Amino acid sequence: MTTPLAPGATIGILGGGQLGRMIALAAAPLGLRAHVYAPDADSPAFDVAAERTLAAYDDEAALALFAEQVDVVTYEFENVPAATARLISAHRPLFPDARALSVTQDRLTEKAFVRDLGLPTPAFAPVDDRASMAAAVGAIGRPSVLKTRRFGYDGKGQVLVREGLGLDQALAMMNGQPAILEAFVPFRAEVSVVAARGRDGAFAAYDVVENRHENHILRSSHVPAAIRPETAASAVAIARKIADAFQYVGVFAVEMFLVAGPTGEKVVVNEIAPRVHNSGHWTIEGAETSQFEQHVRAIAGWPLGSTRTRGQVEMTNLLGAEANRWRELLAEPGAAVHLYGKGEPKPGRKMGHVTRVR
Amino acid sequence: MTTPLAPGATIGILGGGQLGRMIALAAAPLGLRAHVYAPDADSPAFDVAAERTLAAYDDEAALALFAEQVDVVTYEFENVPAATARLISAHRPLFPDARALSVTQDRLTEKAFVRDLGLPTPAFAPVDDRASMAAAVGAIGRPSVLKTRRFGYDGKGQVLVREGLGLDQALAMMNGQPAILEAFVPFRAEVSVVAARGRDGAFAAYDVVENRHENHILRSSHVPAAIRPETAASAVAIARKIADAFQYVGVFAVEMFLVAGPTGEKVVVNEIAPRVHNSGHWTIEGAETSQFEQHVRAIAGWPLGSTRTRGQVEMTNLLGAEANRWRELLAEPGAAVHLYGKGEPKPGRKMGHVTRVR
Repeated sequence: MTTPLAPGATIGILGGGQLGRMIALAAAPLGLRAHVYAPDADSPAFDVAAERTLAAYDDEAALALFAEQVDVVTYEFENVPAATARLISAHRPLFPDARALSVTQDRLTEKAFVRDLGLPTPAFAPVDDRASMAAAVGAIGRPSVLKTRRFGYDGKGQVLVREGLGLDQALAMMNGQPAILEAFVPFRAEVSVVAARGRDGAFAAYDVVENRHENHILRSSHVPAAIRPETAASAVAIARKIADAFQYVGVFAVEMFLVAGPTGEKVVVNEIAPRVHNSGHWTIEGAETSQFEQHVRAIAGWPLGSTRTRGQVEMTNLLGAEANRWRELLAEPGAAVHLYGKGEPKPGRKMGHVTRVR
Repeated sequence: MTTPLAPGATIGILGGGQLGRMIALAAAPLGLRAHVYAPDADSPAFDVAAERTLAAYDDEAALALFAEQVDVVTYEFENVPAATARLISAHRPLFPDARALSVTQDRLTEKAFVRDLGLPTPAFAPVDDRASMAAAVGAIGRPSVLKTRRFGYDGKGQVLVREGLGLDQALAMMNGQPAILEAFVPFRAEVSVVAARGRDGAFAAYDVVENRHENHILRSSHVPAAIRPETAASAVAIARKIADAFQYVGVFAVEMFLVAGPTGEKVVVNEIAPRVHNSGHWTIEGAETSQFEQHVRAIAGWPLGSTRTRGQVEMTNLLGAEANRWRELLAEPGAAVHLYGKGEPKPGRKMGHVTRVR
């Protein structure tokens, strides 16, 4: 059905942030052109794209025209509206496909998908109203975490349900949106598996990443993670099972909790990101093929590249005003500085990152 | 006079080929925008530039407008007309500057510049007519090489003056252009030093590169070169002396012949390229900072990056139809494939390159 791309082809990217920018920057050395579709005129990805469409994600005429001008479409954020994904798919191959998007866009369908594959997740239950909230807390207990089912990121739309927090009070913080209650996982560490699956079903994972968060925002990634080889193998096997179940095409990340179990450490799936991921930025310098190039290879129908790690790697996000340290970082030997071309350094905003390979 | 750039600034690039493209691709991760000025609509660098000007190099209005829209100007080819360089320099800092351009654009002024620094060059003499040709051959002997003073590249505009070749016959091949006769150097190898000098005078060289040519076109680069440490040190010292003499800003390459001397091997300067160079492409994967990022750092007034080599590196050009092997190369583990986004694979045309780090 869909033939592999040839050099000179154009990749359509929905979304104009730093992830779209880094996909476009990885496509060019492979001889591919990027067409970025985004609704904001100051989208950082526009600056490195061969073609640009400035339009809303529900602008059907603009979407159709965009799709006709490209050879394959991908995206840099998982909240692409279902109608947008359907419309694009009617014109051109969309990778990852609409199903991967719709399942992972909703924490409830995502967790159910993972559980139904027989993979470990925290206990969870849907919360739509006072009655289901009471039932969920009864079944799962406290502490637990109430989250909106959709549109949550970097800890937004989450509340920790501790002893003493009233159910109405917790529910009120969801602003009437459908929610999910999840058991709180007393994790020893947070890890992620960044991996790719090709159009031909080939699979390639990077070394497991250990991630440190601050205020729910990724602070730094460390590779390889300080976990046992058998735990790492089990984490990668989980990622592969998820990818195969979706017949997934492209790069994705599975965030997991590392917990101490009675028979040693084990991993529990937290969430799936159907896209290149912040915890894979270290691969630009730290692996033989970056996650961005790997994503392009996968969606182009090309062979996946080597995921070999080049050493001990540490990636640190530059949040808000931290990016003002750019000159000092540029002077540090061996530090690879990445600035995303965003205007305002608002607090907590991801302005760039720095990678150190030893 | 000229303050360092800040992230968000725009670099103007004269020239739209693969070198301009790779400069633009290196500027983006540093938070800088690229504005490419080129006369051909299908310039590969346009596809990765934030801004584009499609105009001739002698279009004074377009040049002035371009200069006003950028913060600093650089170029990807040494044949930028002197008038263009002057016009740009009147509006914005031009790095490398007009003097480096004018001296290196002409083989005679270039060789004289090198000789006047006390650095080793082949014997040479100007050839403007029959009389100066006879005098030059009398002084230098045969075999020697007659070259046009300007606009020669990849062996174009060169003729080997052997025994038996008539002076009129050799002169006729210059098509009446001013020429230079150079002694033929019986070299053991061709090497180059790729290095950078910052606005503050800081200097950083990469490991000396060994280059193999076929039909006068670069076939492959190998790092580190198989030369003695003291020879490598002498090659780097030559490059530094040239850079300091120019008060040069940016990346440059000095091509040298490695010859067997009575007291061991030594190097002789062949030519200077006042720009990023094909024999530095290996640095993208093979060094801690690529020559393209290094050039951007230098012209931005930023600290130079580490030039440390990451292993045994080999860069092979993909010439003409060789680029059709892209799929096979993409399947080779650890091979980094670069395709320049050019349309037609004409014989000998540089379509891409592949780098292998071991």
